[in-house]
Amino acid sequence: MKIVVDAMGGDYAPKEAVLGAVEAVNEWNVPIILTGCESELEKELSVLQYPIDLISIVNAEEIIEMSDHPATAVRKKRKSSIVVANRLVKDGQADAVISAGNTGAAMAASLLTLGRIPGISRPAIAIPMPTVKGVTVLLDAGANADCDPEDLLHFGIMGSIYAESVLGIKSPKVGLLNIGEEAEKGNRLTIASYELLKQSSIRFMGNVEGKDVPFGACDVLVCDGFVGNTILKFTEGLAGAFFHLMKESLLSTNRTKLGALLVKPGLKSIKAKLDYSEYGGAPLLGVGGISIISHGRSNAKAFKNAIRSGINAVEQGITGKIRQLIMNNK
Amino acid sequence: MKIVVDAMGGDYAPKEAVLGAVEAVNEWNVPIILTGCESELEKELSVLQYPIDLISIVNAEEIIEMSDHPATAVRKKRKSSIVVANRLVKDGQADAVISAGNTGAAMAASLLTLGRIPGISRPAIAIPMPTVKGVTVLLDAGANADCDPEDLLHFGIMGSIYAESVLGIKSPKVGLLNIGEEAEKGNRLTIASYELLKQSSIRFMGNVEGKDVPFGACDVLVCDGFVGNTILKFTEGLAGAFFHLMKESLLSTNRTKLGALLVKPGLKSIKAKLDYSEYGGAPLLGVGGISIISHGRSNAKAFKNAIRSGINAVEQGITGKIRQLIMNNK
Repeated sequence: MKIVVDAMGGDYAPKEAVLGAVEAVNEWNVPIILTGCESELEKELSVLQYPIDLISIVNAEEIIEMSDHPATAVRKKRKSSIVVANRLVKDGQADAVISAGNTGAAMAASLLTLGRIPGISRPAIAIPMPTVKGVTVLLDAGANADCDPEDLLHFGIMGSIYAESVLGIKSPKVGLLNIGEEAEKGNRLTIASYELLKQSSIRFMGNVEGKDVPFGACDVLVCDGFVGNTILKFTEGLAGAFFHLMKESLLSTNRTKLGALLVKPGLKSIKAKLDYSEYGGAPLLGVGGISIISHGRSNAKAFKNAIRSGINAVEQGITGKIRQLIMNNK
Repeated sequence: MKIVVDAMGGDYAPKEAVLGAVEAVNEWNVPIILTGCESELEKELSVLQYPIDLISIVNAEEIIEMSDHPATAVRKKRKSSIVVANRLVKDGQADAVISAGNTGAAMAASLLTLGRIPGISRPAIAIPMPTVKGVTVLLDAGANADCDPEDLLHFGIMGSIYAESVLGIKSPKVGLLNIGEEAEKGNRLTIASYELLKQSSIRFMGNVEGKDVPFGACDVLVCDGFVGNTILKFTEGLAGAFFHLMKESLLSTNRTKLGALLVKPGLKSIKAKLDYSEYGGAPLLGVGGISIISHGRSNAKAFKNAIRSGINAVEQGITGKIRQLIMNNK
């Protein structure tokens, strides 16, 4: 097995990408290819300790900027680190690609290079969201702003496979995000999707309301990419606002300042529980190979965990499993 | 001016509804009509102090249950407290109606009895959401699961009038909830709505992402009812999960228990800041009269604040203002 990391993608690349790769190599002994500017990557590697034969570099001089139009940039910048990384998977020289660059470009590069699994019209980004109980896989997290019921059926199937194979959740419960629990509740999309999901071979538990998701009501949460992305961004904003109000309140008097000192470790552990970097990147499910898309703010730990997700996905053969289950549910 | 309260609607009705009405009468000296079972309401009133000529009862024996199908129940139960209350507004015997009963039935009763303002195809529920800075009016909060771009334009216009007239926000900034800030981002609905909102006479500030909403990025947030309702329920769930984790963490050791004692007042004030009952019910905007829909869990304070919202809406003549601005933006 070989994992390829787009070492130029992400706010703290290449430094944190290289560091994460080295940590992954040291821990799991897996060969890693870094794509990007050779001289820069060599410089980063030169100060680090690792089994030298396990990390190689494939030079890629072009860089896709955050401001580039994703699909156009992928088509034009054939020598960019993200396109080169995806091509290595396509050509069988690597088994999974990790990128924390421009999300749209990472998606476009995987879509255009790896293609789609037959039967799937819209690959989806699956995000592991922390809950009180553990983790819920939300998809689509933003790859497709407009979806039809068949897309949501596919999201349910792919999410179910990912949760079981990679996250180790046995017989995952799949919920359809909706504004009421009854089958007839919702908008046109969810009402029609409910029927398809009910007839499928996955463990569909019906509609789930937003208020129950943070308490771990389901293992896989299905919704269109507009709703999924909105929820993720709202969650980010609410957590930020909450910690802002907490800080204001805790620093308001001497009494609360003393209290703050005593409760600080607890608050830190809650913040850690909500920390994206623990959860190792989001797979783009439905493309013809394994592609893990990481947060733009990824640090070394996030890169390392994304690499671990890639390794798990390869070991579990999720691309083949998705191919199979989509055929069975035709 | 007269306000009518559906005194049988809500989890804690009629007790809390009557109590809230009495508190409102005592504070603002406004005449209130209560609709519901006369004997029950007389019993509740008999133990309370208030200017006796300011509260009257209109008997309504039927009750719409939470399990009733909203539109059917409204059509069949003509003598229910919610239908009778709306008819009093329609007949000019009251100026605003308040209900905390079955939300669907409250909406259906106002829609079927008061009708729509000409030009508006979908009345919307506007919810004042607490933010770090104050309040943002979100609409639609769930009245319409499927919307078209013209609906979102109307939501922007109606929300703008409500925020300015009733909540006292000068020249309110209206944002379109979206998954990116640029005009071309979003799904089909938001991309088309952006253009309509841009050409309107309200203060449209463009797209707003969910992460910025809790920090008060805009005064009015426009979205379809599926997305709006999902966000509200998610917010409820996240706040619940957060306080759950906090409690767990604060009670874990003697050290944190001591800290908890010291920070408790601060936490309580944050909880109060997020308390729906402070914000006085949600108007159903776009119907031909003033209708305030309150949370099913409304206590006396929530009823009182909903009555205050009704008074403000009447004083500001928001129905006429909406009628006017919709015509101007044709």
